Amino acid sequence: MAKEKKVEQITDMEVDFAQWYTDVCKKAELIDYSGIKGVFIYRPYGYAIWENMQCILDDMFKAKGHENVYMPMLIPESLLQKEKDHVEGFAPECAWVTMGGSEKLEERLCIRPTSETLFCDHFKDVIHSWRDLPKLYNQWCSVLRWEKTSRPFLRHREFLWQEGHTMHATAEEAIAETEQQLEVYADFCENYLAMPVVRGVKTDKEKFSGAERTYTIECMMHDHKALQSGTSHYFGDGFAKAFDIHFTDKNNQQAYPHQTSWGLSTRLIGGIIMTHGDNNGLVLPPKIAPIQVVVIPIAAHKPGVTQKARELAQQLKEAGLRVKIDESEQSPGWKFAEYEMKGVPLRLEIGPKDLEQNQCVMVRRDNLEKTVVCLDGLVEQSRKLLEDVHQGLYEKAKKNLQEHTFAAYSLEEAKRLQEEKGGFIKTMWCGEEACEVKMKEEGGMSSRCIPFEQETLADVCPICGKPAKKMIYWGVAY
Amino acid sequence: MAKEKKVEQITDMEVDFAQWYTDVCKKAELIDYSGIKGVFIYRPYGYAIWENMQCILDDMFKAKGHENVYMPMLIPESLLQKEKDHVEGFAPECAWVTMGGSEKLEERLCIRPTSETLFCDHFKDVIHSWRDLPKLYNQWCSVLRWEKTSRPFLRHREFLWQEGHTMHATAEEAIAETEQQLEVYADFCENYLAMPVVRGVKTDKEKFSGAERTYTIECMMHDHKALQSGTSHYFGDGFAKAFDIHFTDKNNQQAYPHQTSWGLSTRLIGGIIMTHGDNNGLVLPPKIAPIQVVVIPIAAHKPGVTQKARELAQQLKEAGLRVKIDESEQSPGWKFAEYEMKGVPLRLEIGPKDLEQNQCVMVRRDNLEKTVVCLDGLVEQSRKLLEDVHQGLYEKAKKNLQEHTFAAYSLEEAKRLQEEKGGFIKTMWCGEEACEVKMKEEGGMSSRCIPFEQETLADVCPICGKPAKKMIYWGVAY
Repeated sequence: MAKEKKVEQITDMEVDFAQWYTDVCKKAELIDYSGIKGVFIYRPYGYAIWENMQCILDDMFKAKGHENVYMPMLIPESLLQKEKDHVEGFAPECAWVTMGGSEKLEERLCIRPTSETLFCDHFKDVIHSWRDLPKLYNQWCSVLRWEKTSRPFLRHREFLWQEGHTMHATAEEAIAETEQQLEVYADFCENYLAMPVVRGVKTDKEKFSGAERTYTIECMMHDHKALQSGTSHYFGDGFAKAFDIHFTDKNNQQAYPHQTSWGLSTRLIGGIIMTHGDNNGLVLPPKIAPIQVVVIPIAAHKPGVTQKARELAQQLKEAGLRVKIDESEQSPGWKFAEYEMKGVPLRLEIGPKDLEQNQCVMVRRDNLEKTVVCLDGLVEQSRKLLEDVHQGLYEKAKKNLQEHTFAAYSLEEAKRLQEEKGGFIKTMWCGEEACEVKMKEEGGMSSRCIPFEQETLADVCPICGKPAKKMIYWGVAY
Repeated sequence: MAKEKKVEQITDMEVDFAQWYTDVCKKAELIDYSGIKGVFIYRPYGYAIWENMQCILDDMFKAKGHENVYMPMLIPESLLQKEKDHVEGFAPECAWVTMGGSEKLEERLCIRPTSETLFCDHFKDVIHSWRDLPKLYNQWCSVLRWEKTSRPFLRHREFLWQEGHTMHATAEEAIAETEQQLEVYADFCENYLAMPVVRGVKTDKEKFSGAERTYTIECMMHDHKALQSGTSHYFGDGFAKAFDIHFTDKNNQQAYPHQTSWGLSTRLIGGIIMTHGDNNGLVLPPKIAPIQVVVIPIAAHKPGVTQKARELAQQLKEAGLRVKIDESEQSPGWKFAEYEMKGVPLRLEIGPKDLEQNQCVMVRRDNLEKTVVCLDGLVEQSRKLLEDVHQGLYEKAKKNLQEHTFAAYSLEEAKRLQEEKGGFIKTMWCGEEACEVKMKEEGGMSSRCIPFEQETLADVCPICGKPAKKMIYWGVAY
């Protein structure tokens, strides 16, 4: 008889959230460490989640008229330096290529940390007339940022992402694009990943290097910390001027185009883990789960069980669901634990008794609720249960967000709420960077965003006492 | 009135094939030059071809049980050096990262020229028992080889590809995988790209650095030069030993696994251009064409024409075809030239007279043949015509291959045939590298492959006169 594989244990999230997170990443076989510090290997199960995310997002981008391109991975140093704010933000994190074969290069080349400069260099060649606008480009690639600290998915030196880069004839059009793409990200997070978001604008201190304005969606993790989950930037014509990109407008005048970029990365997989996961492991939103239903035969040696299990798996596959049947020698108990660890949204159990009664048992991963399902309605019931899992995950995360968003009326109160309860602390704000710095230094929180949905909590900034301009969200972020 | 855009001219292929090729790459908007020598930008139309190729290949790989992963783009120098033959082949072409931010790295990191070493480093961690085998991995990424010369698609310093990497319990299984994946490539080239191939084995001189055996598919371009279009390598257990990857087999003995890798890249887009293109520009095989049917309204200002054109475009889209309607102000003549340049397989023209007769005109890109099609059977006819274009392209290319493959019985004859006619020259061969070198130096040809389909042309090697072992193909290659 085969030796029973050990079901590997993970740390409880209440005991050590950071260790729980790392355990899930490893035990669910999402990721592995490479020989280079801060650089990770995306294993098949982790990469399959990204592929599903890519597939959905790519369709959403293309539906809005975007086209995919591929730019070089290397940026000559002189090109990176063309836009002053941008190079200041990124140069400290660049990895530099200095040798090609055995020859020293005349100019250092940086591995892209982001590709605004490369896109601009190309836009200069292809934008001449208003007829050439808008240019709506997107790129799927990896980028490299030589950071000091790292964590699976959340902070890699090399990570996978998409970066949209667009050029428009007017500022209005470019701003509309920036807002539209933020809404695409919000839609994706809420309706595909079951992650509720707060939409807003970054402060000048927190905006992207070189941008005029940065929009963001912020999510709340299970431990009440914030995760910036997607950003969209409006650049004005700053890069266009720096790169001398201009076009002849409809009135036959020379003009500079207005630019945007927007990005979403594999760090969002970290967000999925920390939003939905539990002490049994990963919990995946059904729409991006590599396996949506796992079929497990019970007492598989009994007549007809394995055959029926295969039939049901086939039936679900043909209905377009992503299905795995596990016919291995491991015990049902081991299999239950294994696919719970891997976050498979639905488990289908079928045994001899079920056969007799033309039924099976389906178990939801999110709440372990069991449903006895008549085999005549298997496909419809599976679809409904998957939708229920999505909805259940979304509502639980929404509740977490709502119950951990607090209004504060002084810096001390904000600090105390963060320390005692954690979450998003909302206050009024005068708009001055000095108060933002003070909140960071004394309250231990960074500004997350100035939400689109504003409230008037008070008339003055609780940090300096001057008249308030906006309501702002503060938090401790990953 | 809008100024009529100029239809850009390209060089005739009979006048200057190399210039014709470059013109097509630029004028069909497939690719652009970047600021770094030998590094290219994949523009939307060029990238869309690659996306279609990826989509088909990815399905084929997954149907054979392969899973996608993503490994780091950087290889520590010590890791690259672990397999001696491999490092000798690739080190001269490596681009080296020596700085991270402002700090000099302790060890140089090479941007992957290929990823055998990275996969082996990971396999060591995940392969322990025969139950962990086979591992069937694939990766889509870009790689970098710091070569001296470059040409769009055919030779880039950075290019896009897929690389499969697999590990097996036995040599037999690994060899079967190597052969299976070569057949996947051959199937893809012939049945999706309409490019007939010669399947065979590379000589030891031409095999991949570190491999025991390299299989190849070789295609013939319009100018009768050869293009190596996909390769599949069997490594034995050489890397496994170098990287100390071992597993416990079914008899509870320690054993080394057997390894393969296989790759296909964007250079195949160069192959598509040089196989099917003509003096009007690109000609795309329908199965990978970003636009399969372009709809052009004729006398679009006449009542009902534009509306009907839109209806037809919609109807074809709903049937799953990739369709573009061009309603721009340009003249029909300009549009015809434009979409011929872009290689769109089918053009649908609809004007007032067609409306009256419930018909349209469809023009095949490959031979410019016109067919009047009754609108009642539009979808079926379009599908049939696309299939006809594929078949027409394949047969033309097959004819080129067959009519430019010659048997030779002496080095002089081989050389003369290559100079006068070009193509594949087949001879017997003793198996010695000395004769291969002599053919290169005196005959100007490299060995392309030892074809699976062998013939006995003679008993002796025509180069040295010793007993012949195999029939071999020679050619001038890209």
